[in-house]
Amino acid sequence: MPTMTNHQWRLAARPSGAVKRTDWNATEEAVVAPRDGEVLVKTIYLSLDPAMRGWMNEGKSYVPPVEIGAVMRAGGIGKVVESKDPNFKPGDFVNGMLNVQEYAYSPGKHLTKVDPKLAPLPVYLATLGMPGFTAYFGLLDIGKPQPGQTVVVSGAAGAVGMVVGQIAKIKGCRAIGIAGGADKCRYLTEQLGFDVAIDYKNSDVKAALRDACPNGIDVYFDNVGGDILDIALTRLARHARIVICGAISQYNNTAAVKGPSNYLSLLVNRASMTGMVVFDYAPRYGEAVREMAGWMKAGTLKSREHIVEGLQTFPETLLMLFSGENQGKLVLKVAPE
Amino acid sequence: MPTMTNHQWRLAARPSGAVKRTDWNATEEAVVAPRDGEVLVKTIYLSLDPAMRGWMNEGKSYVPPVEIGAVMRAGGIGKVVESKDPNFKPGDFVNGMLNVQEYAYSPGKHLTKVDPKLAPLPVYLATLGMPGFTAYFGLLDIGKPQPGQTVVVSGAAGAVGMVVGQIAKIKGCRAIGIAGGADKCRYLTEQLGFDVAIDYKNSDVKAALRDACPNGIDVYFDNVGGDILDIALTRLARHARIVICGAISQYNNTAAVKGPSNYLSLLVNRASMTGMVVFDYAPRYGEAVREMAGWMKAGTLKSREHIVEGLQTFPETLLMLFSGENQGKLVLKVAPE
Repeated sequence: MPTMTNHQWRLAARPSGAVKRTDWNATEEAVVAPRDGEVLVKTIYLSLDPAMRGWMNEGKSYVPPVEIGAVMRAGGIGKVVESKDPNFKPGDFVNGMLNVQEYAYSPGKHLTKVDPKLAPLPVYLATLGMPGFTAYFGLLDIGKPQPGQTVVVSGAAGAVGMVVGQIAKIKGCRAIGIAGGADKCRYLTEQLGFDVAIDYKNSDVKAALRDACPNGIDVYFDNVGGDILDIALTRLARHARIVICGAISQYNNTAAVKGPSNYLSLLVNRASMTGMVVFDYAPRYGEAVREMAGWMKAGTLKSREHIVEGLQTFPETLLMLFSGENQGKLVLKVAPE
Repeated sequence: MPTMTNHQWRLAARPSGAVKRTDWNATEEAVVAPRDGEVLVKTIYLSLDPAMRGWMNEGKSYVPPVEIGAVMRAGGIGKVVESKDPNFKPGDFVNGMLNVQEYAYSPGKHLTKVDPKLAPLPVYLATLGMPGFTAYFGLLDIGKPQPGQTVVVSGAAGAVGMVVGQIAKIKGCRAIGIAGGADKCRYLTEQLGFDVAIDYKNSDVKAALRDACPNGIDVYFDNVGGDILDIALTRLARHARIVICGAISQYNNTAAVKGPSNYLSLLVNRASMTGMVVFDYAPRYGEAVREMAGWMKAGTLKSREHIVEGLQTFPETLLMLFSGENQGKLVLKVAPE
């Protein structure tokens, strides 16, 4: 094996508020051979996700925090370079936690093969990956939408939200998306079949939700928290289900998270608010892939990736999630396919 | 029928913050004969409940607000004086919405007969009435406690909370109560069998909950909202269920309700928060009475009423709920049995 260098982004400091360039260290190491059971993977695409902001904080969450000095955690798609696991061979495409670096060593059992003939590789980080699974299980298992009901999703133009709205339509519901900016909103209604898209940056969300949901909200899938969650609470239908998937508006807070002051609407409307973490559904990912791949083939489910090139752009590219600049799933392209 | 006077308390103004004496009008009317289908009832006991504060506010809730000028809404136990409904006869004891007055006219179909030989009359406003039903259905249907799990209830010495903890014990759970004051706490552990009682007025609730719930909280039954809800959220076990029954700490707020800023713990712990209104369970009240009367007979479920005499004391007696002065279900005695 020729000498190869692995460029990496490591966590230098725990951010306070928005992530700064100084919270990262760019490092490089020589690539070495994998150990027994390990696979050496060359990173092609990395998934950039709002949840990464949470992993940078100290303290208990659904996964341990990234340690200071460690390579930043990230899922990705890569190609096997060398394998000490008999289930993988050089040239295989795999999906796994590759982290923010050019080469990853992973136990083979933590990798999944992906087939570039079935779907373009970035789709495995989007609709046929974690964001798609999050939408699929969060909406169907927790939201339990019934045909004719009204499903509202925030962060609707994001990787999870766009799948939530499309599955809602597939299941015979009305789909209302809340997103930031006219372009995103137009995309939701014109390309993805949402019934209504509400531009939270340029409209009165409360009035728009009232107009869009004359019978109230049956399922509210929340990716953003903050004021929009509080407004949605005022429009619940009887027995509504709120799925708490994320709270991107709160992730950079230095003060306490803003709690939903209208939570007593849960009482008035006999409604529920339930948190979900996609990893719990790992044994059922196959089911989701099969069904969603079928919908994609049938043309009722579309995926959209926003691909930015260059590992060196990682710190700035990650920030696009919080400014809302990305259109669809944000993917960092690290190497050519 | 001799001429009788009906003394009443009517809502004079919508309170801002705590209820003031000037929010009430004392009125009197001559008692007249009931109309067809109606029953004239002499009030004996009235139920005073935290929910009454909510009924005094304008705006949508699970029941319409009490109109300005109307007799204040209240449930009660009384004796039939005259009946134009063939199902009732003078001398029958009945439970229904009698409102804050000495004599009530009610459609017979809205009244339920009660048997003073089976249980003392005030118990029908407590453990064998709405508070008991609220505890029974909220805990068992929404909280779904399993043997060995940890159930925490706030407002634990109140009419609902004391039943929640006792049913938790009957179901083989650990029961932790949060209440205000050493006397109430002693009562919970010494008389009602709670495993731990936390005095929120004189202890560090966060530390005490941590000690009392080493494996986290499986069911949190919330009657109070505010800071205590927020603390409970930090101690949830995986897949915990929060039952939102009330939020007495917030009912007198003039500013916005304090939302639970730790609500993202629902996500981390895959937990749920569900609102409940007891009226939804009306078709199943009989089931609850039968089972709870059995437990009372067996001595595993106790009721406790705090009885204050005199309709004229109504404005001041109601305030005891918010200062926490009452020990058990607060009942206003309007006339001798």
